[in-house]
Amino acid sequence: MAEHLTTTIKSEIQEVSISRDLPTIIIGERINPTGRKKLQEELKKGNFDTVSRDAIAQVEAGAAILDVNAGVPRADEPALLVEMIKHILAITDVPLCIDTANVAALEAALKLYPGKALVNSVNGEENKLEAILPLIKEYGAAVIGLTMDDDGIPKTVQKRLDIARKIIERATKIGIPLEDIVIDPLALSMGAEEGAGKIALKSIQAISKEFGVNITMGCSNISFGIPDREAINATFMGMAICCGLTCPITNPLKEQVHMAILAADLCMGRDEFATNWIGAYRKRKK
Amino acid sequence: MAEHLTTTIKSEIQEVSISRDLPTIIIGERINPTGRKKLQEELKKGNFDTVSRDAIAQVEAGAAILDVNAGVPRADEPALLVEMIKHILAITDVPLCIDTANVAALEAALKLYPGKALVNSVNGEENKLEAILPLIKEYGAAVIGLTMDDDGIPKTVQKRLDIARKIIERATKIGIPLEDIVIDPLALSMGAEEGAGKIALKSIQAISKEFGVNITMGCSNISFGIPDREAINATFMGMAICCGLTCPITNPLKEQVHMAILAADLCMGRDEFATNWIGAYRKRKK
Repeated sequence: MAEHLTTTIKSEIQEVSISRDLPTIIIGERINPTGRKKLQEELKKGNFDTVSRDAIAQVEAGAAILDVNAGVPRADEPALLVEMIKHILAITDVPLCIDTANVAALEAALKLYPGKALVNSVNGEENKLEAILPLIKEYGAAVIGLTMDDDGIPKTVQKRLDIARKIIERATKIGIPLEDIVIDPLALSMGAEEGAGKIALKSIQAISKEFGVNITMGCSNISFGIPDREAINATFMGMAICCGLTCPITNPLKEQVHMAILAADLCMGRDEFATNWIGAYRKRKK
Repeated sequence: MAEHLTTTIKSEIQEVSISRDLPTIIIGERINPTGRKKLQEELKKGNFDTVSRDAIAQVEAGAAILDVNAGVPRADEPALLVEMIKHILAITDVPLCIDTANVAALEAALKLYPGKALVNSVNGEENKLEAILPLIKEYGAAVIGLTMDDDGIPKTVQKRLDIARKIIERATKIGIPLEDIVIDPLALSMGAEEGAGKIALKSIQAISKEFGVNITMGCSNISFGIPDREAINATFMGMAICCGLTCPITNPLKEQVHMAILAADLCMGRDEFATNWIGAYRKRKK
């Protein structure tokens, strides 16, 4: 069993540590135009009001890192991503997770970003590894590695572990420290694929145990196509944290899921004197 | 890692199988006068209305086994336990879990009971092992072993594992099959003992992995002294099932905890086509 590692992400003035010995770090997922028509229209017109509101609301609700995605169809992604980041930097101090598949946009964002960003993401595809890992190294960022490759998302835990190993080997080979690699074992919909939940949980456990790295995941997909999704997502979140998930990408404004994260930290002994749990309880009662 | 075992409990006409490959089995905890003044008074007067109501309500809500405890101060426990069991047998077919520390009451109940009961409980104390294990063997029952002994409830996972081993060795030595031993690693209050949650979860994992036995636990104690208990209990339940808990002793009428059990089964791939989840969803919407 590998030693548990600590990943540190920084803004200009804030530092966030991700570790199995510390409370779970929420990466706020909301600043993402995918599937948000209205936000897409605003961004095309250079209106960043929703971006600002989403940034502030998520930080107030408990996000320690904000994911920023500028994927608007037919937009100039490098320019848009840079503008979005500038607006967010102007109103909050939390570190950012730069979320793009566009290499030019990633480089423009890293050039601008004044701290140590988390980059979302690289995966096991050859062209991704070749294009993105050198940028991570050059800018001293941390990186999320998705366990998928040119053949898609594998259906077995072993193959996801193998892709994690490949990403880790390639990244560490060019000098990226192991602790700056965060793995996302990927959660697919249980509605489409019966065993998706179990595979996701077992993959988290296996990758965490084998490499000691921190684990992220966008968990809400797990319940797609099944009723009462937030209740499933909340339970899955607790189970995933129990298996080794340390920095979920989620919406901290979804109360039931957020409470599951706080309760899981309490049950794992990561919330001394239940301070975070009781603080959130008082906030809800106001 | 030991092979996962299947424990089978029977009433006269129903059989319940407990296994990591099957949906979680809820042992309904309500038929217990401890701390229920009104029920104590009723039982003293020979009134079994609440017992009957609790039995039916729990089975309707999803209990597959009913725990029966007759611990009324200054009552004739053997006689009372027998009467309670007779009343329950008259109205429901689910197998029973005979819950008593009184050896005479246990023997009277086992003599009467027409199936294969689960007995709650033995522990690592010498006098308990000597008095109870021969009865389990004689009546072909299954037994819950609590990981505590003459020195109390140990604070480390290793010591709880050691007590589980002692109980298992003593029971199997006199011919009780390993699959008929269910271990309860005990959940203490996190309000009193910071690491209680983590120790309970790690103990479940360690005992399940080492012996392959089924695991039970009364989980609600975990949140004693902390606000918003049901939310903590629900998250803890999902985590505990993820670690190897297969037959929690709980109140299936507590909706949030019950939903966590169903969601955990779904996430562990134990609810084909989400049948149980969707069935419960429809029942809630009625």
